[in-house]
Amino acid sequence: MPETAPITVPGPISPPHRLLMGPGPVDAYPSVLSAMSARLVGQYDPFMTRSMVETQELYRHVWGTTAEASVLVDGTSRAGIEAAITSLVRPGERVLVPIFGRFGHLLAEIAERAMAEVHTIEVPWGQVVTPSAIEEAVVRVRPTLLALVQGDTSTTMLQPLDEIGDICERHGVLFYTDATASLGGNPFEFDAWGLDAATAGLQKCLGGPSGSSPTVLSDRAVAVVRSRARIEAGIREAGDPVAGDFVRSNYFDLGMILDYWGPRRLNHHTEATSMLYAARECARLIALEGRAAVIARHVRAGEAMLAGVRALGLTVFGDVAHKMSNVVAVKIPDGVPGDVARAAMLEDFGIEIGTSFGPLHGRVWRIGTMGYNARRDAVLATLAALEQVLARFGHPVRAGAAHEAAADHYRGSAVDGREATA
Amino acid sequence: MPETAPITVPGPISPPHRLLMGPGPVDAYPSVLSAMSARLVGQYDPFMTRSMVETQELYRHVWGTTAEASVLVDGTSRAGIEAAITSLVRPGERVLVPIFGRFGHLLAEIAERAMAEVHTIEVPWGQVVTPSAIEEAVVRVRPTLLALVQGDTSTTMLQPLDEIGDICERHGVLFYTDATASLGGNPFEFDAWGLDAATAGLQKCLGGPSGSSPTVLSDRAVAVVRSRARIEAGIREAGDPVAGDFVRSNYFDLGMILDYWGPRRLNHHTEATSMLYAARECARLIALEGRAAVIARHVRAGEAMLAGVRALGLTVFGDVAHKMSNVVAVKIPDGVPGDVARAAMLEDFGIEIGTSFGPLHGRVWRIGTMGYNARRDAVLATLAALEQVLARFGHPVRAGAAHEAAADHYRGSAVDGREATA
Repeated sequence: MPETAPITVPGPISPPHRLLMGPGPVDAYPSVLSAMSARLVGQYDPFMTRSMVETQELYRHVWGTTAEASVLVDGTSRAGIEAAITSLVRPGERVLVPIFGRFGHLLAEIAERAMAEVHTIEVPWGQVVTPSAIEEAVVRVRPTLLALVQGDTSTTMLQPLDEIGDICERHGVLFYTDATASLGGNPFEFDAWGLDAATAGLQKCLGGPSGSSPTVLSDRAVAVVRSRARIEAGIREAGDPVAGDFVRSNYFDLGMILDYWGPRRLNHHTEATSMLYAARECARLIALEGRAAVIARHVRAGEAMLAGVRALGLTVFGDVAHKMSNVVAVKIPDGVPGDVARAAMLEDFGIEIGTSFGPLHGRVWRIGTMGYNARRDAVLATLAALEQVLARFGHPVRAGAAHEAAADHYRGSAVDGREATA
Repeated sequence: MPETAPITVPGPISPPHRLLMGPGPVDAYPSVLSAMSARLVGQYDPFMTRSMVETQELYRHVWGTTAEASVLVDGTSRAGIEAAITSLVRPGERVLVPIFGRFGHLLAEIAERAMAEVHTIEVPWGQVVTPSAIEEAVVRVRPTLLALVQGDTSTTMLQPLDEIGDICERHGVLFYTDATASLGGNPFEFDAWGLDAATAGLQKCLGGPSGSSPTVLSDRAVAVVRSRARIEAGIREAGDPVAGDFVRSNYFDLGMILDYWGPRRLNHHTEATSMLYAARECARLIALEGRAAVIARHVRAGEAMLAGVRALGLTVFGDVAHKMSNVVAVKIPDGVPGDVARAAMLEDFGIEIGTSFGPLHGRVWRIGTMGYNARRDAVLATLAALEQVLARFGHPVRAGAAHEAAADHYRGSAVDGREATA
C-alpha cells in the first residue's frame, strides 16, 4: 500500500448544547436518539422483519390510513418526494403543482427531472391556494398527478387538503402531498382526504433526525407502480415482469421498495437499520401520547409562541389563519441586523432560530415549535432569549411581556395537566 | 379529527443479541452506535459544518485520495451507486459493465434505468475479469463510463483494479467502482489506481449501519457533473447555470450535493445528521487504528476463518487467490439442509451467517469477518458454533479442529500484540 499523508484524527463527535427552534431540523426526542444506538440485526432476521412490520403499522396510524403500502424510503425527505413522483409519473405525463412557497418549486423541479410535463399555478408567498383555483387548473391541464405541499416551511403556510381529494377523484387525477413539514403537528387524514401518495421526513414534528422518509400509497397508486414493475436482473426469476415503461430509477422504484417491505421480502437496498429504529420510535411516541394529543400540543406551543412574539412587538408574516401550528415567520424589525441577531441567539443562549429563502431572505426569521421542542419551557426560553437580543439591538421591548403572554396562553389552554414533557 | 382505530403500541426497540457474521450488514463498532445518539445541531450550525469538513477529510484518507469531491450521499450504498452513474452518464451514452456477480448486474440495471446504452461482459461466478478482457471490451464498445464492482459479496471475489485506470486513461473512459463490500477491508487507492468515481456503504468493513454512502469524484468527474449543472428553481439566483442536459434526478445530482458540501453550502437535502455522525466515526476509527492496520486485521481474520472452515472439511467456492479478505463462501455439504442449519446457528448461538443469490442460491453459505467483527473471538466463536451445527446434521467433523486451525493462524500472523479489539 502506498504511503498516505498523515491525518490529524479528530476526537469523538461531541456536539454543543443547542435548542433547535428553527424550521427544522429540531432536537430529536431523547428516546429516538437512544433507539439509534441499539445494536444491529441482520436484514432478514425475524426481529428485523417484525420491526419493519411494526413500523409500517405505526405509520399507518400517523398517516390516518388503512392502506397496505406504508414504507420508509431510505433517504432524507426529498428522497420520499422523488420516489413518489418518479414512480407515479411516466416521462411526458403532465404534473400540476400549485406553488405557495419554496417547496412547491421543489416538487416542480423534481417532476421536471423525471421528464414530466410540469404545469404550475402560483399564489403570493404567505397565502394558500383555493380549492377552486386548483380545480380550474386541473380541468385546464388534465394532469396525471396533482403534487401539492401540505406545509411549506418557507412561508409557514398550511395548505388545506380536505377538499382536494374530491376534486382529484372527479377528474381522475392522482393526488400526492409532501407532508414533511406538517405531519405530526397538524391534522393529516390520508384516507379521509382521498390521497394517493404522501411522504414526510423525521426532522420536523416527528422529532427525529433527517434521513428516513415515511411514505404511503393508496391501492390506486400501488396499481400504477405495479404496472411499471421491473425486477432487477441479478435477482429476477422466470415469470417476473419486465415493463418497458419502467421507473427511471432503481433506488426510487416504489414497486421494488414495496416488494422489499412486503411478504416477498425481495432484496433491494439493505434497510438502514438505525434509521428504521429512529423512525419507529418517532411514530411510537405519537401512538403513546395519542395522535390528537400530539397535534394539540403543537397547536398550544405554536399559539403560545405567536402570542409571545406579538408581545415582543414583532409582526407576523403571512395569513395567520392558515399558518402551520409548528412554525411562525416574524418580520425582522427595522434596524435589527437579522443574521447578527440570529448568531447572538446561538452564541449567547445556544438557541437556533431560522433564516429564510427567496423573496423572504433577510426579511423574516422563522421560529419553530416542533416535535420534542413543542414544549412550554422551550417556547418560554426562546422568547426570553429573543427579548434580550432585540433589546440589545435597540428594538423596544417591555421586560417580561412575551413570557407573560405565552405563559398566559398556556394557562388558558392547559388540558388538565396533560401538557406533555415527553 | 376523525376517530382512528386503536393501535397496539409496541415497546421500545430492544434487539436480541446477535453476532453478525454474514456478508453484511454486520455489527457496528460500539462507538459508532454511541455516536448516533449524540444530540442534533442545525444544518448550518458551525459545529455541523466543521463535522462535515472533518468527515470529508477522513474519507479522503480512507479512499486514498487528495480529491476535493469527497461527500456522503444520504441513502444506502446503492444510493451512492445511482448518484455516481446517473450524474456521470447522459441518456444514450454507453456504459461498459464487466460482471462477475450479482452486483455487476445491479450496476448494469442502474445504468439502464439512467437510459444509458449498457454493454456487459461476463465471467463465471467465482472468477474475476482480466485487464485484457476489459481493454478488449473498452476498445470495442468505446464507453463513456466503465462501471466495475471491486468486491462482489455474491461471489466473494475481489476484482483487481490497479491496472484498469491506465486502460481507461488510454481510451478516454471515466472509471467508476462500487467498493461497498470491500472498502476498509482490502486495499483501495483512488488516486494511484486512476479512478474517477467510487462509492461505498457503511455496513460492511466500515463497521457502521446501512444508510450513508461515502462517495468520491476525481476532478475530471467533477467537470462532467458541473457541465450538467442545474440549480433548482426555488433557490436559483441570476447567473446560475441551467443546463438542458441536466441529471435526471434531483436527489442524486452530485453537482447539487457538491454545492451543499462545498463552500457555497447551497441548500439541497437536510443532511442526515445522525448518519453523518456514524459515517464520521467509522472513518475516524480507521484513521485511529491506521488504514493499513485495519486492512491487515481483516486479512488475518479472513485467513483464520478460511483455515477454520477448511479444517471443518468444507470446500471453499471460487478462486481463493482473488477472494476478498472479509468474506468466504463455503459449499453446503451434501445432506446438510442449508437454511435449517443457518437457522440453528441463529437460534442456538445468536450467530448469523449468510445465504446466497442467483446461481449459488442454496449451494453456499457466506461467512463474513468485517469491521468490528474482524476479530479473533468472533472468528473462533463462529467456527465453534458451525462445528456444533454441522455435527448435528451428520457432517463429519473433528472436535476442536477448526479452533486449532484458526487459532494457529492467528498465532502465526500475530503482529506483536497489535490485534485490535476496537
